Amino acid sequence: MTTPLLSGKRTLITHADAFMGPALCETFRRHGAEVVADTAALLDPEEPARVIAAAGRVDILVVNLAMAAPSTPLTAIDDAEWQRVFGSLVDPLPRLLRAVLPQMQERRRGKILVMGSASALRGMHRCATYSAARGAQLAFVQAAGVELASHNIQINAIAQNFVDNPTYFPIEVQTNPKFQERLKREVPLGRLVSANEDTEFAAYLCSEHADCFVGQTFPVCGGWAPR
Amino acid sequence: MTTPLLSGKRTLITHADAFMGPALCETFRRHGAEVVADTAALLDPEEPARVIAAAGRVDILVVNLAMAAPSTPLTAIDDAEWQRVFGSLVDPLPRLLRAVLPQMQERRRGKILVMGSASALRGMHRCATYSAARGAQLAFVQAAGVELASHNIQINAIAQNFVDNPTYFPIEVQTNPKFQERLKREVPLGRLVSANEDTEFAAYLCSEHADCFVGQTFPVCGGWAPR
Amino acid sequence: MTTPLLSGKRTLITHADAFMGPALCETFRRHGAEVVADTAALLDPEEPARVIAAAGRVDILVVNLAMAAPSTPLTAIDDAEWQRVFGSLVDPLPRLLRAVLPQMQERRRGKILVMGSASALRGMHRCATYSAARGAQLAFVQAAGVELASHNIQINAIAQNFVDNPTYFPIEVQTNPKFQERLKREVPLGRLVSANEDTEFAAYLCSEHADCFVGQTFPVCGGWAPR
Amino acid sequence: MTTPLLSGKRTLITHADAFMGPALCETFRRHGAEVVADTAALLDPEEPARVIAAAGRVDILVVNLAMAAPSTPLTAIDDAEWQRVFGSLVDPLPRLLRAVLPQMQERRRGKILVMGSASALRGMHRCATYSAARGAQLAFVQAAGVELASHNIQINAIAQNFVDNPTYFPIEVQTNPKFQERLKREVPLGRLVSANEDTEFAAYLCSEHADCFVGQTFPVCGGWAPR
Repeated sequence: MTTPLLSGKRTLITHADAFMGPALCETFRRHGAEVVADTAALLDPEEPARVIAAAGRVDILVVNLAMAAPSTPLTAIDDAEWQRVFGSLVDPLPRLLRAVLPQMQERRRGKILVMGSASALRGMHRCATYSAARGAQLAFVQAAGVELASHNIQINAIAQNFVDNPTYFPIEVQTNPKFQERLKREVPLGRLVSANEDTEFAAYLCSEHADCFVGQTFPVCGGWAPR
Repeated sequence: MTTPLLSGKRTLITHADAFMGPALCETFRRHGAEVVADTAALLDPEEPARVIAAAGRVDILVVNLAMAAPSTPLTAIDDAEWQRVFGSLVDPLPRLLRAVLPQMQERRRGKILVMGSASALRGMHRCATYSAARGAQLAFVQAAGVELASHNIQINAIAQNFVDNPTYFPIEVQTNPKFQERLKREVPLGRLVSANEDTEFAAYLCSEHADCFVGQTFPVCGGWAPR
Repeated sequence: MTTPLLSGKRTLITHADAFMGPALCETFRRHGAEVVADTAALLDPEEPARVIAAAGRVDILVVNLAMAAPSTPLTAIDDAEWQRVFGSLVDPLPRLLRAVLPQMQERRRGKILVMGSASALRGMHRCATYSAARGAQLAFVQAAGVELASHNIQINAIAQNFVDNPTYFPIEVQTNPKFQERLKREVPLGRLVSANEDTEFAAYLCSEHADCFVGQTFPVCGGWAPR
Repeated sequence: MTTPLLSGKRTLITHADAFMGPALCETFRRHGAEVVADTAALLDPEEPARVIAAAGRVDILVVNLAMAAPSTPLTAIDDAEWQRVFGSLVDPLPRLLRAVLPQMQERRRGKILVMGSASALRGMHRCATYSAARGAQLAFVQAAGVELASHNIQINAIAQNFVDNPTYFPIEVQTNPKFQERLKREVPLGRLVSANEDTEFAAYLCSEHADCFVGQTFPVCGGWAPR
């Protein structure tokens, strides 16, 4: 009876096989999107442009960039770790936008959602490199949003933590009683956010209902980071 | 084909004839909710309890409290203004919760959404009383969210500004060229958020997809307040 | 050799015998301020004006409002608690400003600092009334700051938690091993902020070095609330 | 009579000839610090370690990294700009910490202050690269702060904008009437923050009074970014 939320929207999802990728593909398809599930690593500087070119029309771009967060004390963070994390999580972002924006600007329509991290909103131990990279993403989205508003293109970000996904919370972590205690103690929600809750919200933020959001960060972390 | 988002959810909307009330009723009904559109002023201390009792089952409570924001320089804010604004916007909130929570706690299920204001997130001239009252709402929601999470009840808030509604942006304001210039200059979105965008988001935040949000404030103000 | 930070500044400190009052008096005096240590309860609506009138010239007003936070589940918050907390923490604020601003505006110079609470920045259990009142303070300061900037009057707030003071962390709490464990677990600083650290910062924010801050909230809570 | 705030504190200030460098040197010296005013570009990956080694004892490290913000539309941001901005503003940060932390950890005492930018707190046009880099800084500081607290080392950041300095607001900008109008319209303070106000605050945050701050960001931008 009602038109599906993302009916006919051609959606490119990056790192579709990692982090929120599989759940994003499933949820976006359920909402009627035509999903291009890309699995390129996006480490090669030219790859983002190739992936966009291969995808053809992109109404929605979901920038889902995954990598296991290194756990390193500050004094042990070396250049190799820094370049690897920024190379995976940050550098692809402007390259993807440079490649996809011309077609969106021509149509005067488009949605970009970055699956970011709440580790940029609240400090954690041994996580400085990863937090810095995720902070770069959110600040980039904030600035880009202001600039793209006049083109009727919306870019926003989810800042997640404690969301069920195989990259950060594999089954062996989830079944560890100590982790369950930590959840109760540190996360007001008292459980992991489900992959479906997270990706339903992502779908909403990529729908036409979300035309009003401008470079905004939406925490999805069970209350772990209050804002 | 798909079940409507709020199918069968009995929803009490307060001040249903003001602020976001009419748009909320329409949107929630379109999503399948059974709407109780209440128009009580809620100024009498006993009225919130009476309204909840009269509503019967309440799956969703939308606390939509309207009043024109007084425009008063700080030195002219008197006790009468202060009591009037807090009496309208703040005092009904704990009374409504006290009345509605027992049935929600018994069912271990319920959603509460406060239609709040971004005037609590960014300072404005001659608006201190109103901002203070709206700030009380958001901080209350934040604390209540943490407490209600273990009952599987979600309370969250929208912090809006520059949303199309007859209480704050009547047609004579909207058609004023100076206001349109101000919109372009001050609001990154460059236009008012539509009543539909705002209430669609409200509907989403009252749906089961939003079980993961804990006392959170969601700015809906076209980028006017960055966070 | 150097002029004391607050040399000759006539400073009115409210609730001077509670919360941060004693430490504020000591620190401000050490920095050369001429302190009027007022202990009026400020519950009577006329009392703020009387206190200001009695103080004569007020260069700096430190709004230190103390009351033990009630610990009440949401469903047990009654009107009496609400009015008591708002009557103590919120209502005196606009009354104090109404009384003190005329002389500051005439001199085109003045500083106001509100000793607020981080409970408005992060949710806590059984603390909704108190959080709401503290949230009203911070939003009020934010709006007032924007309005007072053009008068060269600065109003700002400290949002504190886990600061050593007899009102909230009496000795019997501090010596409880469970509390010390909680500090290590919940507060990144790993200890209480000392009264001196808190009031030194207060003195700084009331000095001429702080002429550039506009309605700002400064968290002082050992990292408990990240922003 | 009173001991100077930073008496005997050996302070390394980077990019001492740019951005806030000259004002920082003057203010820190006035407060009794022994300033090492370093002017290395810090682009070479080995240079941060060399600069720290050459400085000897470093009680306080002020990470002042300057570069003119490129003004580039999103679609014109190329890899060269991205690498240049991150290479200047972000990459030196972990390298400096890696080099300076061992001596601070050994003494169980040290202060690090990053002179960051409010462009990471509020979106601006044609500023996405710069904002992203500044966002990385703030998120890094936030995470590092939590980790360093147990070593009694404090790292915090100032997030500034509209502060008088020759790198971002040279005299020809300041004397432009259009810029003065923009200041009145966009910055609640109505003027630039003076270099002295900014660096006095920096000195405070590097003093022993600031032992209680943990990875915190302090906006210094005349109210431009509310938080």
